[in-house]
Amino acid sequence: MIHPRAQTVGELGERALLARILAILGDGSHARVGPGDDAAVLRVPDGRVVVTTDTLVHGPDFRLAWSSGFDLGFKSAAVNLADVAAMGARPIALFVALALPDATTSGFVEDLARGLRDACSELAPGCAVEGGDLTASDTLTIAVTAIGVLDGLSPVLRSGARPGDVVAVAGELGAAARGLGLLFERFRDGSGNPVPVDVEVLTAAERADLAAQLRPRPPIALGPVAAAAGATALMDVSDGLLLDATRMADASRATIDLDARLDAVDLRGGEGHALLACFPPGVALPEGFRPVGSVRERSGEAVTVGGETVSGHLGWDPHRDWDSGRG
Amino acid sequence: MIHPRAQTVGELGERALLARILAILGDGSHARVGPGDDAAVLRVPDGRVVVTTDTLVHGPDFRLAWSSGFDLGFKSAAVNLADVAAMGARPIALFVALALPDATTSGFVEDLARGLRDACSELAPGCAVEGGDLTASDTLTIAVTAIGVLDGLSPVLRSGARPGDVVAVAGELGAAARGLGLLFERFRDGSGNPVPVDVEVLTAAERADLAAQLRPRPPIALGPVAAAAGATALMDVSDGLLLDATRMADASRATIDLDARLDAVDLRGGEGHALLACFPPGVALPEGFRPVGSVRERSGEAVTVGGETVSGHLGWDPHRDWDSGRG
Repeated sequence: MIHPRAQTVGELGERALLARILAILGDGSHARVGPGDDAAVLRVPDGRVVVTTDTLVHGPDFRLAWSSGFDLGFKSAAVNLADVAAMGARPIALFVALALPDATTSGFVEDLARGLRDACSELAPGCAVEGGDLTASDTLTIAVTAIGVLDGLSPVLRSGARPGDVVAVAGELGAAARGLGLLFERFRDGSGNPVPVDVEVLTAAERADLAAQLRPRPPIALGPVAAAAGATALMDVSDGLLLDATRMADASRATIDLDARLDAVDLRGGEGHALLACFPPGVALPEGFRPVGSVRERSGEAVTVGGETVSGHLGWDPHRDWDSGRG
Repeated sequence: MIHPRAQTVGELGERALLARILAILGDGSHARVGPGDDAAVLRVPDGRVVVTTDTLVHGPDFRLAWSSGFDLGFKSAAVNLADVAAMGARPIALFVALALPDATTSGFVEDLARGLRDACSELAPGCAVEGGDLTASDTLTIAVTAIGVLDGLSPVLRSGARPGDVVAVAGELGAAARGLGLLFERFRDGSGNPVPVDVEVLTAAERADLAAQLRPRPPIALGPVAAAAGATALMDVSDGLLLDATRMADASRATIDLDARLDAVDLRGGEGHALLACFPPGVALPEGFRPVGSVRERSGEAVTVGGETVSGHLGWDPHRDWDSGRG
């Protein structure tokens, strides 16, 4: 007898698969109308809603040899929750469009649903999957839209940094990039194709780095905390501190000078979804934030490190940055 | 010299492609924060927001020989606008996650953006694309999330139909299905593969049916009109009147009896995204709605036609329903 988890999406059909997913996700908490009608209705008491969407695609964004269904559900939730937090908002709902090859197992999709659920309950209590869409596709694709509320606070844009502000970070900078480097360096076969991860061969520090890559845990609750503390600018670090600080500096028409003690991976590593914030001088940094630089009048460059020009590329590319010189 | 429209997404890069898309979409009208920050902020004055998501995937949902970029943009907007209208709500924003093969031409994506824009301006004035996401994928995928507001009205669910109600429809029932039938019957090669449509060979009526399939124009504005007129139940007809009326009847624990004069394609044809509504007896139907049946106490069956049991399958499948007996 075949275990029911071994059934494929194609064999099971959309209706039965949806029932299994909904059994895992449970009842949405904020929706007046839950899944099953044409749309969900959410309460947003202060009359403003924050909306963002981000997609993970098999191939460019993940490899199934490296990521479990749970990992993918967790990460696809986390990166969208981070974009809501990066406005100073509190996430209340996710909407998930899943495009699945027929050969995908039901067990994989159920694990993905658990990852979505657990990311919400761990990173953004009160947030839940309130709706979605299932379609067939040759390419596994997870498109998530996250909805947030501001609870009366003003949204914090990336354009508000002012000379004299303290630049601060909450969350991990280099860990996710080190984790990706581990995957590229240690878990590929002779042809360069990904092979499953054996965590037994990893040190505790390496496991933590891998977890930061596969199941990032951005400090979602600190988004509204930064807004309430008077942050002048806020964004999440998705492409590396240097590159994202450049975006913030350009949007704010200022120069951001970063601490010279930050190492190369902390400066260039992406995907950690730490929160990058600016606070007016004299504001006590909220717990969880650490200073990493300061805002100056715009000089020629958007970003400097220890007052010095940054040479070379700003972002992180594991193909280029990690593998070069290692064959 | 190669025309700039011939550039591919892979050659152009995400940033340049996004600039072209944003130039077509223009400024969002409802967003306090437009595209470019981590998320959009929308005003929803009555403290409730309606959210729905629906995806079009190359292969199962469309063929590039039959649909232009404009068609796909228009349709992906229309089907999501219809789900918002089907709650009795007014759409205010779309968020669009595009997953594009590198070989997609920039011109195709720009046409898609025009289709999104024109569907909003034609079907839901005031609604605009307020954000989105671009990723690379082997499979062209358009995941749209639509956001709506209720303007103080109560959302109209599919579960509120009561015995004695008049069942009414606004919008086209069979046209989109006839259009799909035309594509399957007239625009495939000897191997059954789709070939480009030559509209010159079609009659005016056939062109209208084809347009209903490729660029559906659901009566979005009639959703809030139905809600204001006291509709007890509301949904859009995406899988055929018989099947969707069954869903409404089941959700309402009632039986819906449909008019025996409806023809087979009107009863079973899907994808038209007409609005299916129930109104209390004695309510004057809002302009644009026509009666198609009545709600009765639940008998054994969810749906009857002219009081009679419906035999055979309820939904529309062009492979089965249109091609059978035609080779």
